[in-house]
Amino acid sequence: MSDGYISLVNGGIGGKVAKTLGLPRPSVLRRYTEGATLTAGPVLVLGSTTGTGEDSDIVAQLLLSTGFAAPDLEVHRAVLGTEHVSWGAVVLVLTEVEHPDDLSGPALDLASTLRSLAPGGRVVTISRAATEDDAPAVAAARQGVDGLLRSVAKELRGGSTANGIVLTDDVDLSAPSVGAALRFLMSARSAYVDGQSLTVGSTAGSSSDWDRPLDGRVAVVTGAARGIGAAIAETLARDGARVVVVDVPAAGEALAGVANRIKGTALQLDITAPDAGEKIIEHAVSRHGSIDIVVHNAGITRDKLLANMTPEKWDAVLAVNIAAQLRINDTLMRSPAFVDAPRIISLASTSGIAGNRGQTNYAASKAGVIGMVRPTGKLMAKVDGTANAVAPGFIETEMTARMPFATREVARRLSSVQQGGLPIDVAEAVAFLASPAAGGINGTVLRVCGQSMVGA
Amino acid sequence: MSDGYISLVNGGIGGKVAKTLGLPRPSVLRRYTEGATLTAGPVLVLGSTTGTGEDSDIVAQLLLSTGFAAPDLEVHRAVLGTEHVSWGAVVLVLTEVEHPDDLSGPALDLASTLRSLAPGGRVVTISRAATEDDAPAVAAARQGVDGLLRSVAKELRGGSTANGIVLTDDVDLSAPSVGAALRFLMSARSAYVDGQSLTVGSTAGSSSDWDRPLDGRVAVVTGAARGIGAAIAETLARDGARVVVVDVPAAGEALAGVANRIKGTALQLDITAPDAGEKIIEHAVSRHGSIDIVVHNAGITRDKLLANMTPEKWDAVLAVNIAAQLRINDTLMRSPAFVDAPRIISLASTSGIAGNRGQTNYAASKAGVIGMVRPTGKLMAKVDGTANAVAPGFIETEMTARMPFATREVARRLSSVQQGGLPIDVAEAVAFLASPAAGGINGTVLRVCGQSMVGA
Repeated sequence: MSDGYISLVNGGIGGKVAKTLGLPRPSVLRRYTEGATLTAGPVLVLGSTTGTGEDSDIVAQLLLSTGFAAPDLEVHRAVLGTEHVSWGAVVLVLTEVEHPDDLSGPALDLASTLRSLAPGGRVVTISRAATEDDAPAVAAARQGVDGLLRSVAKELRGGSTANGIVLTDDVDLSAPSVGAALRFLMSARSAYVDGQSLTVGSTAGSSSDWDRPLDGRVAVVTGAARGIGAAIAETLARDGARVVVVDVPAAGEALAGVANRIKGTALQLDITAPDAGEKIIEHAVSRHGSIDIVVHNAGITRDKLLANMTPEKWDAVLAVNIAAQLRINDTLMRSPAFVDAPRIISLASTSGIAGNRGQTNYAASKAGVIGMVRPTGKLMAKVDGTANAVAPGFIETEMTARMPFATREVARRLSSVQQGGLPIDVAEAVAFLASPAAGGINGTVLRVCGQSMVGA
Repeated sequence: MSDGYISLVNGGIGGKVAKTLGLPRPSVLRRYTEGATLTAGPVLVLGSTTGTGEDSDIVAQLLLSTGFAAPDLEVHRAVLGTEHVSWGAVVLVLTEVEHPDDLSGPALDLASTLRSLAPGGRVVTISRAATEDDAPAVAAARQGVDGLLRSVAKELRGGSTANGIVLTDDVDLSAPSVGAALRFLMSARSAYVDGQSLTVGSTAGSSSDWDRPLDGRVAVVTGAARGIGAAIAETLARDGARVVVVDVPAAGEALAGVANRIKGTALQLDITAPDAGEKIIEHAVSRHGSIDIVVHNAGITRDKLLANMTPEKWDAVLAVNIAAQLRINDTLMRSPAFVDAPRIISLASTSGIAGNRGQTNYAASKAGVIGMVRPTGKLMAKVDGTANAVAPGFIETEMTARMPFATREVARRLSSVQQGGLPIDVAEAVAFLASPAAGGINGTVLRVCGQSMVGA
């Protein structure tokens, strides 16, 4: 489950050999550790050079506000001489652009900072969503930000990333989810999120303690006996939640181990059973008093070329990966217990976005998850809830460790960070979407893929 | 500009060597030639196994209707014994699915046909767009089709492709653009379109002669002196249009050559000039009596990592690739000459979708094009017009021939058809979107990329 190549090429002799041969040299990613600073250095906030610049003032004030970060977070408003500074993050506030010409100034300002970005640094753009109701020039400028940020993400090295926050027109910069998204994308928690955009579509959400945002919340995680599910359970517990871990009876021992480790409870359950939703609610409420967060992580693969597909393999994958989620969500949304700004987070996959050879059944199920979260999010909004999906790319797990060597190596390196992610990277994204402050992010799909090339 | 590798591995000895070494063996793609049959064999129409199946009846009737194809087009409604048949196309009508479970029957029916698909065969799904207003199960089923078709596209070999037609809820199967899209995707004209969806969003559009759909129309193509632009001009002329070819004065001789070849007229023009739109309209109307189709193909690259970007390189690319288009469109949409179901087609790029290392300026401009076509399409709809973008992947041109060998080889092979496209492939997509029958396809982006891996 480990990628020994990364430590090899970051060592003295291995590094020299790799450099000489022109081999990819993935960096060790900066990941969250308790007590570490939010960013790898001071933060620079750059704004529009054509608008009023007011929006970048607001963002700078947000960064400096009480409780946003440690009191010693340095925030700058102009590019300094590059000798003495190593930026932890550069935030590019582009909410005021109205024509593609307006991108020139900020892009060149950003350009002048890239050599001074610290290892594990962050570029975050903040802009508005392009829609068909914009003037064509406005939509062109807004969508242009996307091309810029994805290209910058492909250029950065040293474990640095570039991501975007996109606000719909009726949401302003003071929405709780703007701050939450900015914090997440600037922090080490988003280590494997690269080249992506997070859309903030409403002012819903409430700020909370940044260190233990899930205090007082009860979470359920399916498929939690091992791998990504276990990491999600541990991360939600770290963030303060009481956690119910769910898995099939055959995984009972591993499941009990996870439950003990995080002081949660275990529920052995076949999620495809007609009454699975009722059993989940009953367990959570009777043992923990409520149910607030449900993470649909359980999933299976039964890979075959479609030409060789069997009804058994097709139906099993669709039953576990999507039909069970639909049935459980239906039960949850009819339950009076699931009404306190509840959260549904479903695991999708880059295969569900781009398709994958030999995975028609899996890709159909994961595309189904992507289709599901939009209307589910709309229904959940009635009780200040959200439904979102997280789409992992190549993650180092027991499952991927069994892939043929060459396939695994190609999948690892075909991303901007030139390596696979870890289960914790997916778990951090889930925990972020589960947090009270992320209530304005709804019906979306967040890729955790290191900007994998795999696309549409 | 040619990919000698394709003919090598399709030859006797070269083919054996490639097979032994496990090298990619891209097929020669089936491309349009006058008089050739629409498909490479009979067409099979499969429908929902859970709904009424009425929708697949309608599609079968459409295929058999007068004028849709040659009178000898064979249409079948059930999978035959595989001994004697080699399907030219399999059309999977999934408009009636309401739950992911409903995908099982049609997917397995499709599975049973794949070994009988002719070289250059086609799989086309027809389904409805998943929206946030659907029931979650309906949206899951509809989006699930996308995962299925993209995976099937990655599985097909022999120059076969899989693509989808997606109808919004208020559009029925009798809309002119459904037939037009089906014909395009089944035909050899879509050789390099793979793993994509075409959304039909309205019943606009009118059917026309399939062989010369642009008879009586006047088209303008910018950047038409060579490469993709010249191919577009030739293809629009082949389809019946009178064509104005536009390029910079420095390319005047090549431009005149193209104009002579297609019996069109040449206009030497800097498209970034403030009055470029007026000059284009004036030329087209005075020489040809009207202006109906404008293809924004002119584009430049000035590649540099953003860290090394100069204002000159940034601004030049934005000025030509997006600002000029915005200004010309503005002039066109205010002109009384551009009101007869007019068409705007802009060249985007997969770089504008996914970003590209060293192309922040180019990617921002091409993302800008993608942002622009949605509101422009909405404005154009007032006069039964449309605005769409075509996003080429790796196309064999003089420009790509100058790429370093290894970069070019990787770009060529990282697609489902394992080869670059030709300028004609882009031109066919443009001609399709320019046709009167495509009037229901508006504000969209059509990738012509052989299902390149390059994604988001």
